[in-house]
Amino acid sequence: MKGKSFKEQERQILEDIILHRRTELGDNFIDREIPNVVLERLLWSALQGPSVGFSQPWEFVIIRDQSIKEKIKACFEIENEKARKIFSDKPSYNRLNLEAINITPINIAVFYKPSSTPILGQTSMNKMGVYSVCLAVQNLWLMARAENLAISWVSLLDENKVKDILHAPAENELVAYLCIGYVKEFTELPQLEIANWEKRKRKEEVIYYNSYNHPQ
Amino acid sequence: MKGKSFKEQERQILEDIILHRRTELGDNFIDREIPNVVLERLLWSALQGPSVGFSQPWEFVIIRDQSIKEKIKACFEIENEKARKIFSDKPSYNRLNLEAINITPINIAVFYKPSSTPILGQTSMNKMGVYSVCLAVQNLWLMARAENLAISWVSLLDENKVKDILHAPAENELVAYLCIGYVKEFTELPQLEIANWEKRKRKEEVIYYNSYNHPQ
Repeated sequence: MKGKSFKEQERQILEDIILHRRTELGDNFIDREIPNVVLERLLWSALQGPSVGFSQPWEFVIIRDQSIKEKIKACFEIENEKARKIFSDKPSYNRLNLEAINITPINIAVFYKPSSTPILGQTSMNKMGVYSVCLAVQNLWLMARAENLAISWVSLLDENKVKDILHAPAENELVAYLCIGYVKEFTELPQLEIANWEKRKRKEEVIYYNSYNHPQ
Repeated sequence: MKGKSFKEQERQILEDIILHRRTELGDNFIDREIPNVVLERLLWSALQGPSVGFSQPWEFVIIRDQSIKEKIKACFEIENEKARKIFSDKPSYNRLNLEAINITPINIAVFYKPSSTPILGQTSMNKMGVYSVCLAVQNLWLMARAENLAISWVSLLDENKVKDILHAPAENELVAYLCIGYVKEFTELPQLEIANWEKRKRKEEVIYYNSYNHPQ
């Protein structure tokens, strides 16, 4: 094979990074700046993501300004109040600290920018554009973990309000709102698994062979 | 910090895997089986993906059956014919071999399975569920590259026809159709960049600071 060939030891390191990546909740972050060189490596990783038709349909807003974080946090509080009512039968919801917006040094709002012209590979499944942005986010997330940085993805947000706060173009779609910082601890298991909020699914529950008529 | 800490050398290996990951076009694949143990590692990587509220809303159909691949390929041909008309002003479209469905040993159809009950973190932005599935796919893709396996993501498909072929539940959404195999070569640059189909965007075009009013 021509081109870069990876060795088993390198594969195992990726396995380790994937295994130890966590979705962080809010209590764990510490007050420590993220060097610019580290931020640059996170952004580089995102920009190397796959994209349908090499369209690179992503835009990133790097937020360090506390006043903007406070506005986003106010937006979160409203949505979290709605969610509390939805989960009123699960009192443990109130014990979860679901955001780290203004205690993390960097927030990144990630947007999908639709194209005004047809994109190769996107003509039958239009959602491929926004999916490309998600793939870029996962590159960034794994790189953050390799930098021993944690990410809290805040999704209890009103997309239109966030777009207003950030003066985003009307056609852009908010894909992710990431709060990034150093933490006291990376837990062995996902925090929602530890909290017994959801159980890990068995492989056999989600894998089929050749068609849905043939589970394992 | 408690928990696993990664070293600079390990971070560099992830950087290398991210850098050398490619979206494969169809001409490059070779006729070589994928060992089951390798497939298991790809699936493991996907199942370690982040998911909103730890909902793990993914389902995977592993396709080795040639007759099913042929049906999917027929579906691709129809959509590709439509796309050819859309790109009739770009004759180079006809030179791109955009699928490797029946020449790769394994295809994986990846679905989003919506939940019938509310999901933590998904109550304000419902699309977080399908985004979780995308993140899992990127884990799988990077692990495939570390295994020196290439992926061709086929998106010129009619989602409903694919669901019919695979007997997928009506509520499921097709997120990705991946064709996986060994290749003759991993190119230094993305093939659509080499073909000059699209140019790589400069970082300054897609990164903003604090809001869209403040580009770099």
